[in-house]
This record gives sequence, C-alpha cells and structure tokens, in this order.
Amino acid sequence: MDRVRIIEVKQSVFADNDRRADQLRRELKERGIFLLNLMSSPGSGKTTTLARTVELLKDEYKIGVLEADIDSDVDARTMAATGVEAIQLHTGGMCHLDADMTRQGLDALVAGDVELAILENVGNLVCPAEFDTGAVKNAAILSVPEGDDKPLKYPLMFQVCDVVLINKMDVAPYFDFDLDRCREHIRMRNPDAEVIPICAKTGEGIAQWADWLRGQMAAWRG
Amino acid sequence: MDRVRIIEVKQSVFADNDRRADQLRRELKERGIFLLNLMSSPGSGKTTTLARTVELLKDEYKIGVLEADIDSDVDARTMAATGVEAIQLHTGGMCHLDADMTRQGLDALVAGDVELAILENVGNLVCPAEFDTGAVKNAAILSVPEGDDKPLKYPLMFQVCDVVLINKMDVAPYFDFDLDRCREHIRMRNPDAEVIPICAKTGEGIAQWADWLRGQMAAWRG
Repeated sequence: MDRVRIIEVKQSVFADNDRRADQLRRELKERGIFLLNLMSSPGSGKTTTLARTVELLKDEYKIGVLEADIDSDVDARTMAATGVEAIQLHTGGMCHLDADMTRQGLDALVAGDVELAILENVGNLVCPAEFDTGAVKNAAILSVPEGDDKPLKYPLMFQVCDVVLINKMDVAPYFDFDLDRCREHIRMRNPDAEVIPICAKTGEGIAQWADWLRGQMAAWRG
Repeated sequence: MDRVRIIEVKQSVFADNDRRADQLRRELKERGIFLLNLMSSPGSGKTTTLARTVELLKDEYKIGVLEADIDSDVDARTMAATGVEAIQLHTGGMCHLDADMTRQGLDALVAGDVELAILENVGNLVCPAEFDTGAVKNAAILSVPEGDDKPLKYPLMFQVCDVVLINKMDVAPYFDFDLDRCREHIRMRNPDAEVIPICAKTGEGIAQWADWLRGQMAAWRG
C-alpha cells in the first residue's frame, strides 16, 4: 500500500499552454517516451481499461502511469497492483490537466526509461479536451450506459481524440445504445477517429485496442 | 419541433458570482419561483429523470425547464414533449452555468408565472459544483454504472448538493455497485444530503423524489 505516491500538481500560471505542450512533446520525443492521454466521463472505465492494457503490453514496453484525480488514490492503487509504476496526481479541485501539470507528473516518475507513459485525465467530458497535455495521441472512452448521443452534446472531446473506445459493450442489451448511430455521431465530429468497441471487464476488444496503440507507437518511432 | 427555442448564453464577466447568485435567489423568492439545479456526469439520466418528475408534478405546479448543453437540442426536445416550456441553453463550450447564465435562461421563459424552474446543468461532475446558480436547492444524480466510489473522487459535487439520486438501479445486478458503500461515501462528504435510489426508466423511486421536492417547496414558501 505504501507504493502509491501522491503528487499535488499545481495549475500552470502560464497562458501559453499550447506552446508548452509542444515543447513537452518535443522533449518526450527526444527521450523516446510516447505519451497517451486518456479521457472520459467519470465512471466510464478508464482505470479498468488501463489495467487491461498494461497487462497486455507491460512485457513489450516499459510503462508508467499517471492517475489524475481531484481527490482519493483509488486508481493509483489499482494500477500499482498491475506491477507498473503508478503515480496519483491530485489536481486540487482542477477539472483538467494542462501541459505543465502533466510535466510535473512525468518528472515524478522514478523510472527514467519509460517507453509508454499513460495519463489518465480527470473524469470530465468537457474541460480536459480544451487543454493540450503534450500527448502524442488522445484517446477517449465513451461507455454504453452514457448513451450514443454524447458526441452531439460534447463536440470538442470527440474532435480532439484520435481514437474512441466504446466501453461496457457487455451491458449493451440492457441499454438503449445503438453502436452504428454512435459511430455516425462520432464521424460527424471527427471523420478520422478510430472507433473500437471494448469491454474492459471481459477483455473484449482490448487486443484490437493494443494493436492500434502498438501501430501508433511504431509510426511515431519511425 | 419548432417549439424548442435555443438561447446562446454568454459567460458572465463578473467575478462576484456568489453575490449575483444571492441576488437572483432573492428575486426568485419575491416572484415565487423555486429554482432547482440538477447536476451529474454526462449520461447519468438527468433528462429522463426530469421528464418523469415533470410528468408527476406538472398538474400541481407550473413548471419551466432550462436545458444546458454545449451543443445539440436533444434534451429540450425531449422535455418539450412532456408539455412544459423547455428552453435549450447553449453554453458555447463552457463547462458549467453561473448565476448570470441561469438568469439569461430564466428571462427567456415566456411564462412569467412559473412556480418550479428546473435547470439541467451541463453534464459534468466537477465544474458545475463550483458555481452557485442562484438555485434554492441543488440535486445531483449518480448512476449505478459510474460506480460507488465517485463521492471519493469528486468531493465538491457531493458537498454542495442537498439530495443525491442514485439512478439506473435496474441495472445494479450487472455492475459492481454497493448501495450501502455509496451511501457511506456520500455521508463522508455530506452527512446532511438525502439519498434516494431511483430508476428513471421504470419509475422506481420517482414518487419519493417528488415528495422530497414537494416538501422542500412547501418549506421554502413558508
């Protein structure tokens, strides 16, 4: 239980977040660290998806995880149980992470030779989409119980993400959720976004998602 | 379909939101308008709960509904179908409503003699909790698929609300959700909050929730 470290990240006072995010991205490129930013509403299954992903990829890549939350260390404990280094970032009430807060988290990772760093952003379908964290790729999770209309109501999140994981497919029979309609709504916002249906609980689709991630990392490494 | 009006609300430039919220509350008291602020994550069932509530109470009170969203008019259309006046507020990307935005919505209601005004806030478990809208009471919905740990991770939302509706109780068998543990987590944040399990889809618990609302309105009217 002592393995979970908690870092209180301070909101950046800098207005030029975009420039700082680009700078962070360049530095990470030089260090060979692929940063993935994972976003979603509260309770969409970010942590469970992440635990599954780490299980599948931890023998291929050295992985570090940053768990952002306003409070609690529930998620970092879950991730630490997978055996990778996990740090809990507390945002002090802030609804998102910016590039400087992300940098504070990355700096706190003890392992300097991480190849894949995953940032689990604050559970929020609005604000995290507005702030470039310096990530190479942005992923969003939308879970079945939330409804297939969310891309209509929260446009920016779906515009900025490179991939959308549709989670909790196992409970689809119990909800009025139409996967085709959801794909259409996402396409309206972002024709280039990859859409992968998954179930983090059962493992459905996780292999396809891991393949997507491997492909992105390979392309980025060049 | 033409009955849905969309208002683009502008973020207040005023730093003194608390003072403005108090002022709005006083004015609403004079006019006999009870304002309820309904908050939750995206997809927790705010609109379905609201439609059920309106069905049950619309013969007792004259009701007006403000539907806040970043984009789309899905929710105002749903509410207009219940026969009450519903206005869609577009926040222009903003993640919450403040007192001035709420006032703009209330001013747009054609009916001047509304007794119960319900504001469906932007789907977001973080930011709406930080801004007093001028409401008499704050309600939050937490749905079963989101998980019982949400009061640990999103403290302020549960601190500011007077009542928490635990929605989607019908799917509880398919999720790892413990109602007693959830009540405990809410109590940690706010010992005074009323907790009412409901299912907006089946109608379970809606009568109890309507009773709570009736009681609050009666006490407020004095």
